[in-house]
Amino acid sequence: MKEIKLFAPATIANVSCGFDVLGLCLDTVGDEMIIRKTTKKGVRISKIIGQDLPIETEKNVAGVAVLALLKQLNSDAGFEIEIYKNIKPGSGIGSSAASSAGAVFGVNKLLGEPFTLQELIPFAMEGEKLASGTAHADNVAPALLGGFTLVRSYNPLDVIKMNSPKELFATVIHPQIEIKTADARSVLKKKVTLKETVIQLGNLGGLIAGLYTNDYDLIGRSLHDEIVEPSRSILIPEFDAIIKAAKDAGALGGGISGSGPSIFALSKGKEIADKVALTMAKAYKNLQIDFEIHVSKINTKGIKIL
Amino acid sequence: MKEIKLFAPATIANVSCGFDVLGLCLDTVGDEMIIRKTTKKGVRISKIIGQDLPIETEKNVAGVAVLALLKQLNSDAGFEIEIYKNIKPGSGIGSSAASSAGAVFGVNKLLGEPFTLQELIPFAMEGEKLASGTAHADNVAPALLGGFTLVRSYNPLDVIKMNSPKELFATVIHPQIEIKTADARSVLKKKVTLKETVIQLGNLGGLIAGLYTNDYDLIGRSLHDEIVEPSRSILIPEFDAIIKAAKDAGALGGGISGSGPSIFALSKGKEIADKVALTMAKAYKNLQIDFEIHVSKINTKGIKIL
Repeated sequence: MKEIKLFAPATIANVSCGFDVLGLCLDTVGDEMIIRKTTKKGVRISKIIGQDLPIETEKNVAGVAVLALLKQLNSDAGFEIEIYKNIKPGSGIGSSAASSAGAVFGVNKLLGEPFTLQELIPFAMEGEKLASGTAHADNVAPALLGGFTLVRSYNPLDVIKMNSPKELFATVIHPQIEIKTADARSVLKKKVTLKETVIQLGNLGGLIAGLYTNDYDLIGRSLHDEIVEPSRSILIPEFDAIIKAAKDAGALGGGISGSGPSIFALSKGKEIADKVALTMAKAYKNLQIDFEIHVSKINTKGIKIL
Repeated sequence: MKEIKLFAPATIANVSCGFDVLGLCLDTVGDEMIIRKTTKKGVRISKIIGQDLPIETEKNVAGVAVLALLKQLNSDAGFEIEIYKNIKPGSGIGSSAASSAGAVFGVNKLLGEPFTLQELIPFAMEGEKLASGTAHADNVAPALLGGFTLVRSYNPLDVIKMNSPKELFATVIHPQIEIKTADARSVLKKKVTLKETVIQLGNLGGLIAGLYTNDYDLIGRSLHDEIVEPSRSILIPEFDAIIKAAKDAGALGGGISGSGPSIFALSKGKEIADKVALTMAKAYKNLQIDFEIHVSKINTKGIKIL
């Protein structure tokens, strides 16, 4: 195999009560990438269509992720990467993660799979480090593994792929405003009360129990973020109104996608998720806020070869 | 039915990373109770064998729990309760919870089960409130429901019974020292860092995922308490040495049982759990600390009629 074309999915990190540990993979939103073996050693980003992003390998998240992988292998292989970018950077649905994860996935395939999907996570995290200053895994893990993922630990890295109930659908609305990840981080409290922590633990536990038992009501009851959402949601226009509209339309619950500004809702079944999308869209239309909206089942495969 | 005899099990609350939300039910340690319908209205504690505990109904945890149940029913039924107390108060394995849960379970049976097991939890919590000042559910829930339980929320009360891997065994050692729950609470920090919270969330998530997938290694990797154990373990003699000895003997991991001083370890299979017991016992013998020790599978039934 000399060339691979793939779909690199968008992802939702945090997932309400799962701040910095949970992530899920989307199916209908994502980038496309073509990766080609070249005779010239090294990595070249040959094309970026759809977004204005750095094309220099060392400044591109896909570039640095692949460089980390090749360095580990001591490889002198060469690759060129075309990126067809559908996920907007700064949207909060894992734009950098899709590029980083897609690139290492494709290169790994072209090299005959020296690494497992789990082993690719640290390389993709190098892309995240370039994008946001932190080598976090909560977007690259679901992009690579698919489904719902839990980052149990960073030291050592321990990522668990969990069960995804079949009828679970995500609706994601992206208001066309920019929140820098650094800004979204700066509103976070450094300390939380023990009581808030216990509430968050209860809800995370409930959400995970709900995922494994396909208990949609329990998933809904658990989608409550005690710690981060109260501070961070003030950066997102009409956050509370959008969540309320989603729930009124039948969503199980929702929250901020990643560090925002996208807002997600989870629903049982596509019909409700579509209805939730209409209601969320209507709310932003009434406020004359531009937006993009997506409805997607949970993508349990992760990156797909096209 | 005029009389019921039952086994009211000991329980382990917190379970390391599950501070204030997780609990599990033991099988080989517990009280026995005999509850009898009487013609005289009200609740009388007729006998307490094994421990020196208040016999006045309003000062006894079993008494107040049953009074709360009868009040809810507006019932003028009468009961007398004999308690054969094997669980030492203050041991950290749910002594008050066993009495409260056992009493409401038995009375509910004798009344023809007006309440489900879930519905009995709030009554049993009244006993906990009397014992420790806080109406916590993390011991009474596993005592009543069996297995591993999660208190997702107190407001409203939402308790989930989770899966218990079949080969999971607990070893519990109780050093014969007293730690008052109030003292164990007073060493807790009121605030924790966001970083500590995220580590705790990761481990709680890993533990629950491990329970549902019968992944013993994951359970072991997740048995780490970032928040409470560092402060509370200083109240327990040689805590670190006991945990290390347990792990060296093959335990998956362990921690403080409830608010201590009992220490628990979880192991895969009875053979390892027995070996862990020997090792823990040896450590305390060498230090000339008196102790009691128990090995038990996870009791998935909860209270049992004898």
